[in-house]
Amino acid sequence: MYIGQGFDAHRFAAEGTGRELWLAGLLWPQAGEGIEGDSDGDVAVHALIDALLAAAGLGDIGSLFGVGADAHGAGMHGIDMLRETVHHLHTHGYAPHSASVAIIGNRPHVGKRRAEAQDVLSAAMGCRVSVTATTTDHMGFTGRGEGIAAIASALVADLR
Amino acid sequence: MYIGQGFDAHRFAAEGTGRELWLAGLLWPQAGEGIEGDSDGDVAVHALIDALLAAAGLGDIGSLFGVGADAHGAGMHGIDMLRETVHHLHTHGYAPHSASVAIIGNRPHVGKRRAEAQDVLSAAMGCRVSVTATTTDHMGFTGRGEGIAAIASALVADLR
Amino acid sequence: MYIGQGFDAHRFAAEGTGRELWLAGLLWPQAGEGIEGDSDGDVAVHALIDALLAAAGLGDIGSLFGVGADAHGAGMHGIDMLRETVHHLHTHGYAPHSASVAIIGNRPHVGKRRAEAQDVLSAAMGCRVSVTATTTDHMGFTGRGEGIAAIASALVADLR
Repeated sequence: MYIGQGFDAHRFAAEGTGRELWLAGLLWPQAGEGIEGDSDGDVAVHALIDALLAAAGLGDIGSLFGVGADAHGAGMHGIDMLRETVHHLHTHGYAPHSASVAIIGNRPHVGKRRAEAQDVLSAAMGCRVSVTATTTDHMGFTGRGEGIAAIASALVADLR
Repeated sequence: MYIGQGFDAHRFAAEGTGRELWLAGLLWPQAGEGIEGDSDGDVAVHALIDALLAAAGLGDIGSLFGVGADAHGAGMHGIDMLRETVHHLHTHGYAPHSASVAIIGNRPHVGKRRAEAQDVLSAAMGCRVSVTATTTDHMGFTGRGEGIAAIASALVADLR
Repeated sequence: MYIGQGFDAHRFAAEGTGRELWLAGLLWPQAGEGIEGDSDGDVAVHALIDALLAAAGLGDIGSLFGVGADAHGAGMHGIDMLRETVHHLHTHGYAPHSASVAIIGNRPHVGKRRAEAQDVLSAAMGCRVSVTATTTDHMGFTGRGEGIAAIASALVADLR
């Protein structure tokens, strides 16, 4: 069993851009502007992807999907990137065993749809995935509502 | 074995409020004003609670203890919330196996009472709990002394 | 198997100091000024050291190497501190099993030398070590380029 650690942070899009807010594999309508990023900006999923790739010793989201507007991952939804990541692990003889992501930000109110988010993420990963959420009491970039961050950890089984 | 990730951050109370400083299950007299929060503001314990609940797939501190002044956890000491969390895990067939929390802030000087803190936390959880501490070199909200943060991870055994 | 969590953050040295930039066990020439700190400021290695010591219940980097200019670790390279940490674990009957560190900062471009960094860290620890890297989209102290942070987790086997 190997352990992986992931982190990601992205900026909220400016007011009025109408960007969809995707987080933890879900679309959050009426929760304000979305998150910037080459893909859908889903920091929770991106942190989980990094944790999985790290645990399997297969690089990180940048090495697998590229960086910038012409990246392989540009325009992809985080949840599809997560599915591709899990497939990549399987190809190399690894399987996700357990994962957890802590979301840090003012919005959306993740707790209201925790079960739904966990179901979507668990289905993509084939294992238990837990989602927790907290704020930083108006401190720092997450507390000022500039952006959102996520810290993830994962255990991956070696099937080889 | 399941893995859980937790994070929490809270603001230090304003000078002169005389709020007690609770951290890592201990009261820290003569270490300055305490930490704001519905409970005692013990970010280290709160992060551990989130890590345990996440590992067991049982939500997070907000779903178990509520949020705001009328929450179940309002006025509770973090260490009592931790004990209740562990009991909650046992009821669902889980047991804490190992946990660790990294405290990020300027004060108190955690290292001086690490053994004491670890003993209190380990007694509440029934497993090894380690406490590390660091600063952010005067950078960010923790570095400016506005507040304190904690990152925790835990392994939980499935006894079912 | 025990889990450990580590975190560290340090400030970049001022322009013109000519301080060497050490990160993840490597020297990064032409990547700008180095990182301040009593040792070489290698936050990735420091976070890994804290994760290992926490998992083994052996304190943290401050208790093992001291703090300040007269500390045992002052002037040591992070990678040498890591080797000493692993030796310390072995002496107490523990062995690193798996570790992962997420580096948060604008520079250097870690992905370009990920394999090299992982090789150096793995050789020092005797187990798989993964390195991921991300930025914070110009937010916070890491996003403004004031400093760099790292979050690490580790699994340690109990050989006793």
